[in-house]
Order: sequence, then C-alpha cells, then structure tokens
Amino acid sequence: MSALFSFAVSAQDGAARTGAITSPRGVIRTPAFMPVGTAATVKAMFPEDVASTGADIILGNTYHLMLRPGAERVAKLGGLHTFMHWDKPILTDSGGYQVMSLAKLRRITEEGVTFQSHLDGATVSLTPERAIEVQCLLGSDIQMVLDECTPHPATRDEAKASLDLSMRWAERSKAAFGKMTAPGQALFGIVQGSVYADLREESARALMDIGFPGYAVGGLAVGEGQEAMFDMVEVSTALLPQDRPRYLMGVGTPQDMLGAIARGMDMFDCVMPTRSGRHGQAFTWGGRVNLRNARFAEDPSPLDPESACPAAQYERAYLHHLVKSGEMLGSMLVSYANVQFYQELMAHARQAIADKTFAAFAEDVAQRYACSEAD
Amino acid sequence: MSALFSFAVSAQDGAARTGAITSPRGVIRTPAFMPVGTAATVKAMFPEDVASTGADIILGNTYHLMLRPGAERVAKLGGLHTFMHWDKPILTDSGGYQVMSLAKLRRITEEGVTFQSHLDGATVSLTPERAIEVQCLLGSDIQMVLDECTPHPATRDEAKASLDLSMRWAERSKAAFGKMTAPGQALFGIVQGSVYADLREESARALMDIGFPGYAVGGLAVGEGQEAMFDMVEVSTALLPQDRPRYLMGVGTPQDMLGAIARGMDMFDCVMPTRSGRHGQAFTWGGRVNLRNARFAEDPSPLDPESACPAAQYERAYLHHLVKSGEMLGSMLVSYANVQFYQELMAHARQAIADKTFAAFAEDVAQRYACSEAD
Repeated sequence: MSALFSFAVSAQDGAARTGAITSPRGVIRTPAFMPVGTAATVKAMFPEDVASTGADIILGNTYHLMLRPGAERVAKLGGLHTFMHWDKPILTDSGGYQVMSLAKLRRITEEGVTFQSHLDGATVSLTPERAIEVQCLLGSDIQMVLDECTPHPATRDEAKASLDLSMRWAERSKAAFGKMTAPGQALFGIVQGSVYADLREESARALMDIGFPGYAVGGLAVGEGQEAMFDMVEVSTALLPQDRPRYLMGVGTPQDMLGAIARGMDMFDCVMPTRSGRHGQAFTWGGRVNLRNARFAEDPSPLDPESACPAAQYERAYLHHLVKSGEMLGSMLVSYANVQFYQELMAHARQAIADKTFAAFAEDVAQRYACSEAD
Repeated sequence: MSALFSFAVSAQDGAARTGAITSPRGVIRTPAFMPVGTAATVKAMFPEDVASTGADIILGNTYHLMLRPGAERVAKLGGLHTFMHWDKPILTDSGGYQVMSLAKLRRITEEGVTFQSHLDGATVSLTPERAIEVQCLLGSDIQMVLDECTPHPATRDEAKASLDLSMRWAERSKAAFGKMTAPGQALFGIVQGSVYADLREESARALMDIGFPGYAVGGLAVGEGQEAMFDMVEVSTALLPQDRPRYLMGVGTPQDMLGAIARGMDMFDCVMPTRSGRHGQAFTWGGRVNLRNARFAEDPSPLDPESACPAAQYERAYLHHLVKSGEMLGSMLVSYANVQFYQELMAHARQAIADKTFAAFAEDVAQRYACSEAD
C-alpha cells in the first residue's frame, strides 16, 4: 500500500473487525456501507444529506458513467467528486457486472468485452486497460479490476474458466493502474469462483500473488442463497491478508451484512436502501416497514423513533400518503431514512466489535428483522 | 377582518403596493408567491427547503386532498399543517377549478357540482358548504369560496350566468364559513366574469356587498392572453378595496406576476416553478434556462450565480446530466432553485416598491426574460 492509502484494524471480536481506511480524501470507518451513486447521484438524495447520514464513501458505477455523461466529459469537468458534489472518497466498480446485467449483445474475448449500450445501442468495448482508464478519468479513490462476474448457476468447469480469465484480467488491470494512477488511489482485486470453495481459494491466492491494497469478494448474492454466500465469504476471508480491507460486493440486507462482518468482511455496497426507498419499503430499527400497507394510513407514529435521521421522524400516515400518491417526496424521505439506517447499522456494528458484543448485536438485529418480515 | 387576520400596505409605487398580511400562523409579506403543494407536498421539495426559499405561505388543493388522503383523515391526523410538516400559513382553493380540469362526468346544478373522482371513479359532491367544511377540516388559514371557473372562451351570456351562480355560491360559502371557522381564519371571495370588463366590475361589487377580508381574481390565465388578463386585473383592482389583499389565481410567469403587481395585485400561486423544475426548465436571474439543451453538457458554470439558493450553485453540466438521465435529483434541484427564484423575485419586487423603483425593476426582469426566451 502507498503511504497515502492505508488500513488499520483497531479491534476484533471473533473474526469481525473494526478499523479505518485512510485515504487522501478522508477516513473510511469499517465496517463501512457505501451508498450506490450509479449515475453520479445517490438516487433521490442531496449529496449533503448522504454525507449527513454518516457515509464516509459512496460507490459510482463505471458502466453507467462511461456511457453517460462519459468518462472524458467527467474528467473535463473536474472529475467525479467535483461533478457530483461529493468530496469524500468514491469507489468505482469496473463496469463488468453491469455489462453482464444491462448491456445487449455482449461478446467476451480474451481481450475484453464488447457490448451495445442499453441507452443508444452504440457498440462499446471494455478491456481491463480501458476499465482502469475510465476509473482514472473519473478520479475515484478506490478502483476495481475488470472481472467477469460468473453467472449463477455455473458448472465447476465454467466457473474455473471464468475465474482464470478474471485472474488474467486482474493482472492486466494492475499493470494499467500502475501507469495511470494518481497518488493515494488504490486498486482492489476481486475473488471469483462461484460456489466452489477450492476455486475461491485458488482465486484469492492468485490475487495475493499479484498483490493488491484491498480485496473484494464478487459474484455472490446472485441467487446462491445465504448459506452458500457465507461459506464462500468464509473460505475467502480465511485466506485474504489480515492487514488489507475486504469488500463484499453488492451485499445486501442487514442480516447478510452482519453475517459477513462476523466472517471478517469490512465493506459493502447495495442499491437496496435507495431502491427500496423509492418503492416505499423502509428499513428501521423495528424491522422492515412496507409503507404502502393500508394499516399505516392513519398511523401518526414516526417512521423510526430510534433513528437520528430527520426523515425518519416523519409520520407513517404521511409517508403512506406520499408513497400511495407517487409523490417524489416519499422517495426522498424513505431513501434518506434507509441510507441513514444502513449507516447507523454500521456505526453500531463498529461499536459492538470494539465492545466485544458483536454476536449479541447481530442476533438482536436478526430478531427485529425476523419479526417484521412476518408481517 | 378579525383582529387575528389583518392586512396593511406599507408602501405604494403607482398602483403597485407592498405590505403584510398578519395571521395567527405568521406574517405573509406581499407581494407574495405561494408555491403549490397540491397533494400535501410541494412536489420534489423538503418542507424545510420550501421555507428556506423565503415562502411565507403555500397553497393546498382542496380537490386533491379531499379525494386523497381525505379531509376527515387529515383532520384526524392533526390538520394539514401537522400532516405535511408546514407550520406557516396555508391557503386552500375551493376545489372548483380542479373539478373542471380533472374530474370526469361533472354535473353542475344550483346546489353544487357532482363529479367522478379521477382516482377511483367514485361519485363525489362538492357544494359551497362542503367546500368550506373540507377547508376547515384541513385547517387552512386562508380559504376560498366555491366558484365556477368560467371556461374560456365564453359568450357574454355564458359568462354572466356562470358569474351569477358563483356569486350565489360565494354568499353560501360565507354563511357556511361563519358557522365553522376558527379564530384567525379568513375566507376570500373570487371575482369572475371572463374577459368582460362590466361583468368583472359587477362581480367585484357583488363580492364587496357580501364582504370578505380578501379578494381573488379568478378565471384568468386560461388562454385569454396577457393583454386581456391585465385588462381584467385592472378593472378589478380599480374597484376592490385598498385595505384588503388581492390574489390573482394561477398566475404565472415572472412577467405576468410583475405586470399584475404593477396593477395592484398582492398574491400569486402557480405550479410553474415546480412543474418546470421537474422538466429541467429553470427560472434564473439570467432568464429561463432549458437544461435539456445540449449546449449545457459541458458548461461548468452554476445554474444561477445571482441566486442565493444552494441548488442554484450546482453546475449546469451536472444538472443537464441529471435531467437527461431522468434522475430525481435533477427535479429536486431545479424545483428548489425555481421556487427560490420566485421568492427572490417577490422580495426584490417588495423592495423596489418601497424604493419607488418598481417600473424599472419590472422592465429589467422583462428584458432578461425576453432575451433568454429567444434562445
């Protein structure tokens, strides 16, 4: 790691750990949840409100940003931080995942992936080198190697071939990053291997041989189920170096994140708090709340009295009305409350790890969420 | 006027006047622009941001609120102010205008109007008495008599018949209001008469005979053109009492409002700043700005450096990107900037009237807007 980018664990509780990533644009307290700012905006939120929830870092999507407004344009306008009014750290993914889930007519070769933009049908090419170039143009603080997010389900042979390609791309990504990086920027490798423990181990070892300042675990939360996901997290964190941050990509629910923290993960991202927020689904300290439900029509109680979020103090009856009426303010308030809940969850997790009470904390949250989901 | 609701003119410049309405929930500086909070929300804005723009009062739509969430429900939840987190004054219309523009299968009789809800097709009846009852359940500070918004164009006979009905409804509205009102609430009459000066005069005189603490001019900005509108405003304000506020309903553009202020109007409401905001059309001190325009794609200048609004400091290139991408943040920022522009316009108008420089100010704004519209 460069002197400008570092990670230190300050306390452990079993495999769970709390600490901080230090980077030029600020400290990222871990475990950390990164709200997703797909198209240079955490949807339906003012940037200052994202910051006020306690988020130390947000995620931007390379796929979306390279297509619109375009990486070169963002660079010309001063980089992604300036463009989107966010001066704290930003992590960008490599674009690989969205190419698989959103683009049309994908063709994967050794060189990279060619696809048609879902916006205008233009043919676009994404190689490991271009993925890094785009992320450097955006100016993100933590960048990700281009990988192939192995589809689920995959046979062992398919997973192995996909993994091998991803490891070759990881090596090329690092080489490109070395030529383009600015001081304090970091590139993370991504463990793949589908649901095969030996492939996950092989992938982790291959990445460690290449050497990265942080490691992600990818290709999970794609339908394999929580047990398989936790198994793959465990085999990965057992191997990955203790002194590097570990990032579980695209996860997830409060229970998924707490389970992964218990297994040694440090960073998460997920569209769930904002996407659910736009659909009237709230995350609260009392569990999930579906604000569309008619039983809230005359409920004068605040969405979440245990939350410190201003948006969570709005009455359920009013939020129900806004959601049912399709009013933007409903999306704005519930997204805000959800992102803050996720940040409060991480803050409590950090404290519980420092206090060596993490297991009890995770169990308490699981119970709150188990009850509410039975509604 | 009751002791709790009063109006005082503090300065005049020609027919233009500035002053203040005092009501139990706060002072309304005039000329005043009321952002429209149709369904218990000024669309895409947090209530505290609406307040921070300088708005002293907002408008709620009786038609929408009586259908959803329902006036009785709002009353049960503590009234509209509590429900929508707005503790300053609220003016509600009577619902008549929206019945004409939104509802299906309308049937107008002497008794009132029966219509089908545009939401669920339910048959709903609105009489002068029910319109007042709904507004009292909502708890609005300024209420409006039920009237028939005369369609445009209308023959003189049609306009006369419609006006006569509206005047009978105004009398019944006042009688109902007398029985239900709370201290400090006020009921305004509405001048109708289409584009016929003698009918406007007849209507104003009829309302003054009934007696109201404030008078609105309705049925304008419906396609009659600015010249006809200004003519009708002039004949109305020439007759209406000097010591009562005058409200031009549903108007309008900056130029329309300044022209009406020059002719003695004090209050305005319009969906334009919020509706335009949701479509990427900004009102700035430099004129109108269509943020969808490709020439803003790489424009790093702020939307409106002359505005004190935080949202107006965002760069045009970023706003262009948000608007083109259909991101809610685009609607949020441009709506906020527009509502603040409207408030700043009113603040400048008040100052210019006090300084006896209103004509020059209105001309300056007209020139800024004339140039920008030719873009």
